Amino acid sequence: MSFQDDARAQDAADPLIGLRQAFRMPEGRIYLNGNSLGPLTVVASHRMTEVVETEWAVGLTAGWNAHDWMGAPFRIGRKIARLIGADPHEVLCADSTSVNIFKLASAALKVQSDRSVVLSEPGDFPSDLYVLDGVVRTLGGGRRIKLRPAEEIEAALTEEVALLVLGHVHYKTGGLRDMARLTAKAHSVGTLVLWDLSHSAGVLDVDLNGARADLAVGCGYKYLNGGPGAPAFLYVAERHQELLRSPLQGWMGHALPFAFDDAYTPAPGVGRFACGTPSILAMAALEAGVDVAGSAGGAAMQRKARGLGDLFMRVVEAGPAARELELISPRDPEQRGGHVAYRHPDSYAIVRALISRGITGDFREPDVMRFGFSPLFLSHVEVAVAAAVLGDVVSTRAYDDPTFRQRLAVT
Amino acid sequence: MSFQDDARAQDAADPLIGLRQAFRMPEGRIYLNGNSLGPLTVVASHRMTEVVETEWAVGLTAGWNAHDWMGAPFRIGRKIARLIGADPHEVLCADSTSVNIFKLASAALKVQSDRSVVLSEPGDFPSDLYVLDGVVRTLGGGRRIKLRPAEEIEAALTEEVALLVLGHVHYKTGGLRDMARLTAKAHSVGTLVLWDLSHSAGVLDVDLNGARADLAVGCGYKYLNGGPGAPAFLYVAERHQELLRSPLQGWMGHALPFAFDDAYTPAPGVGRFACGTPSILAMAALEAGVDVAGSAGGAAMQRKARGLGDLFMRVVEAGPAARELELISPRDPEQRGGHVAYRHPDSYAIVRALISRGITGDFREPDVMRFGFSPLFLSHVEVAVAAAVLGDVVSTRAYDDPTFRQRLAVT
Repeated sequence: MSFQDDARAQDAADPLIGLRQAFRMPEGRIYLNGNSLGPLTVVASHRMTEVVETEWAVGLTAGWNAHDWMGAPFRIGRKIARLIGADPHEVLCADSTSVNIFKLASAALKVQSDRSVVLSEPGDFPSDLYVLDGVVRTLGGGRRIKLRPAEEIEAALTEEVALLVLGHVHYKTGGLRDMARLTAKAHSVGTLVLWDLSHSAGVLDVDLNGARADLAVGCGYKYLNGGPGAPAFLYVAERHQELLRSPLQGWMGHALPFAFDDAYTPAPGVGRFACGTPSILAMAALEAGVDVAGSAGGAAMQRKARGLGDLFMRVVEAGPAARELELISPRDPEQRGGHVAYRHPDSYAIVRALISRGITGDFREPDVMRFGFSPLFLSHVEVAVAAAVLGDVVSTRAYDDPTFRQRLAVT
Repeated sequence: MSFQDDARAQDAADPLIGLRQAFRMPEGRIYLNGNSLGPLTVVASHRMTEVVETEWAVGLTAGWNAHDWMGAPFRIGRKIARLIGADPHEVLCADSTSVNIFKLASAALKVQSDRSVVLSEPGDFPSDLYVLDGVVRTLGGGRRIKLRPAEEIEAALTEEVALLVLGHVHYKTGGLRDMARLTAKAHSVGTLVLWDLSHSAGVLDVDLNGARADLAVGCGYKYLNGGPGAPAFLYVAERHQELLRSPLQGWMGHALPFAFDDAYTPAPGVGRFACGTPSILAMAALEAGVDVAGSAGGAAMQRKARGLGDLFMRVVEAGPAARELELISPRDPEQRGGHVAYRHPDSYAIVRALISRGITGDFREPDVMRFGFSPLFLSHVEVAVAAAVLGDVVSTRAYDDPTFRQRLAVT
């Protein structure tokens, strides 16, 4: 059986194949970049019109109650909670991932006041490190960041470490961290852990409470398909909620936001991690995306995403470019997130050549190409075709054209 | 000449009257609450469809360059700059007002490290005070907030004050602070000033650089008509930009956001105050609103808004409820922002009765009703009618009905 026949058979047996109808995919494009920006959902398209033309234009300020805009951060949080193994009252939708890391890391360092170190890994999504650098500069008191490669993290967990901050899935390699093991190890020395779920929420079967996680954040615009710059989310385990206090004390996090007291009283529960007024337009698009993921569920998404990744690698490795492409992702699906990455010195030109052939992947500095396998809108046939075209482009050096090699200032 | 005739004559001479066509106003409603949530603009309606259905759905990640999503915070910032007397490179559109206060107040306190006091006023918009409380708790080092009533602020400006934070227009009374005078007084003792322009940007002829202002923030969803929870803006005077460092160090504020270095290097200029990825949907709606305000200009908006407020007060005071309503706004238009507020023990029921008659004002705890006079979409006739209906409702006690008196949990 050829890969194409195999892929067709897998599509026929795929319980999620019908969910593609929930998306507005561009014609003739195989989109392997949903881990960077997810596509538009059909419901988001309708909802945006409704929110803009009816809720805002006609309802005006009444929308805060009549359309429960006030409740959106909690309502969407509860829906995300189901996808990440959290209880409904442990997740809030708010601000950006970076702002949420600042809130939770600062709050954690304040309660861990007898410890000075934030432990993290070099080379993972750098914005997390930028935010942590801002946190320790802001809090002062001798706090500092210690960076250790993934394989040395466990050994570096000592009693001086206040907080461990890790990406659950590495943004570049797709490598998956063992959340339960690392959390248990951290707890054994009194360290709290903050997980960044940006590359796992909406694609893996995340189980925060199963791992006895403390804190987490994640992104709304990748696998949750919330739109460009969609609001992010944060998770605070129930047992920590009353102990932690957000440094970003805005009116939406007040116990009585409409009492307009001069003094700040943090809301009970996860609501205290809200800050300013959230964008209702952005929230509406995100909610539609989250609903599609919710209709699939974490287990089914994880199974399909990893199957798509396996298929992609099999086709690439059976093809003519197998020896030119260096896989930097774990081959074992159990150790992998929803994307697969290869290294090649001409990755930038290759990604551009693929785009010109209707296949969207992603280039990451300095020489990495990244292919994301969103389980909600991709078919196995599309993934097999994309892998075959990649092999063709690389082996024929079809990318070796000045228009593809020319680097843009911003990619 | 009756007030109605007078109002008609003013509409005939109003250079901004045509801008009402730029808005989608609900039929049969006089909307005096644009200072809480501005209405939808026609261009925002079109732009939302375009951004969602074309830029996002078809362009996908290419939108960051092809549709200059990356440039939106700067582009909208430049447009807002024209409305607030700032230079184009001094304003950035980002995050919420609360988050932006946190950034600027923290940065200012760090450079004023030999001073411990943040001076502000009790009873103004409380979220600003909540954020400042979070700032001093987070930074520690003996920093504290000192609250003094408006009339005592100047006397309280001493050399221990690191930062003065004030609303430019009081959110409840509409009272306008003398920005130039207070800034000069603060500078004379080495104090920096952070202005909250939420109730002045898009309605008054704000002149930050004319006042030699240091720092400012403001809201996008009030007079700038950016939609519910629209992104906010921040201003940092050029002379301070390289000295201040945001505590919220996200990738969008990095000098080279796509280099993905582990180390954070603040962008030159106001861009260092960006943090995470902004919502492009929210930005698009805001930009359309800002463009309408830009087509009017600060001087024309201020003149009309104050004229509308004067007209409203004249009709109320010539009417049957003059003695029951206590004006808490300055009568002198030069000392007033874009709204007018009255005190009445039954304000809550009165506002609800007005809403049922097609007139939207705003209730503020405990007994204040607030009427906003957005100069872009209101006519003088509407304002005269609204004032006459207010007088009628109050004098006939038409609000004295259980359905109007019943308080909702959230208003």
